[in-house]
Amino acid sequence: MFDSYVPVLIHFLKALSAILKKAESHCAARKIDPEALLGARLYPDMYPLRRQVQLTTDFAKGIGARLAGLPVPSYPDVEMSFAELQARLAKTMEFLCTLTKSHFDGAETRPIAIKVAGQEMNFSGGEYLAGFALPNFYFHLTTAYNILRHNGLEIGKGDYMGRP
Amino acid sequence: MFDSYVPVLIHFLKALSAILKKAESHCAARKIDPEALLGARLYPDMYPLRRQVQLTTDFAKGIGARLAGLPVPSYPDVEMSFAELQARLAKTMEFLCTLTKSHFDGAETRPIAIKVAGQEMNFSGGEYLAGFALPNFYFHLTTAYNILRHNGLEIGKGDYMGRP
Repeated sequence: MFDSYVPVLIHFLKALSAILKKAESHCAARKIDPEALLGARLYPDMYPLRRQVQLTTDFAKGIGARLAGLPVPSYPDVEMSFAELQARLAKTMEFLCTLTKSHFDGAETRPIAIKVAGQEMNFSGGEYLAGFALPNFYFHLTTAYNILRHNGLEIGKGDYMGRP
Repeated sequence: MFDSYVPVLIHFLKALSAILKKAESHCAARKIDPEALLGARLYPDMYPLRRQVQLTTDFAKGIGARLAGLPVPSYPDVEMSFAELQARLAKTMEFLCTLTKSHFDGAETRPIAIKVAGQEMNFSGGEYLAGFALPNFYFHLTTAYNILRHNGLEIGKGDYMGRP
């Protein structure tokens, strides 16, 4: 069950990568400053697109590493351009591809402790995945999509779902 | 594993219910026509708030019923007001509360067929949950949240996550 989430995460990271390629092409075709999208937010105190993408990858690598009982790879949040965000997505997918079924032996009951807003939260692997990590992963992925939709990028639900 | 998703779905439906209560109170306090939020969209060809809420409940009841091998309860999409959306959320949670652990025996491999845009898609229960239903459930939940955030409702990530 747990190892089956790795292909799902990779699938949705690929979908996000394809969406960002469309956004970059859209900027080039319409002579839009990429920053107009990369720095776009749905509200002034929400994170901009680039941070939503960084956070999507953070939850993806966090899920893979924590359920596998490995240290979570640390990626500094320095990406400014579409190309740099693509590199971060690629790096995250490469990390997930190193994980094998045997890494997830005992994942459901593995104790997982994380800090949220300075408070330690304790989960089993199963609780962490279902009740914390997946809701966050899809939150940031959807918000990245919504920022681009709100800014007129011609994408649809099939792009979000990564349908061919 | 599978039955553990029922409490998670109920948790996030409760969180959405609390967010909608804040939205309704906000309308009352600021003398805002509730339709200004219920009909709000992030882009003209996206669904408005009320439809995002309906779809969130559709995926929640779909997950519960399909993994339990039961018929999916059919709710007509007639809700116009906050009160009616709250009733739909309550009805969905009541349905999920009728499901017990034994309903999910064999859920991982249960064959599930659904139609998406006129095309039949076939999954095992495990694939349906991880690769299709959860990404959709959180998509519509997050989009409901984003519509309200974009319209200035004072909510934050803790509201989305249903943190006390």
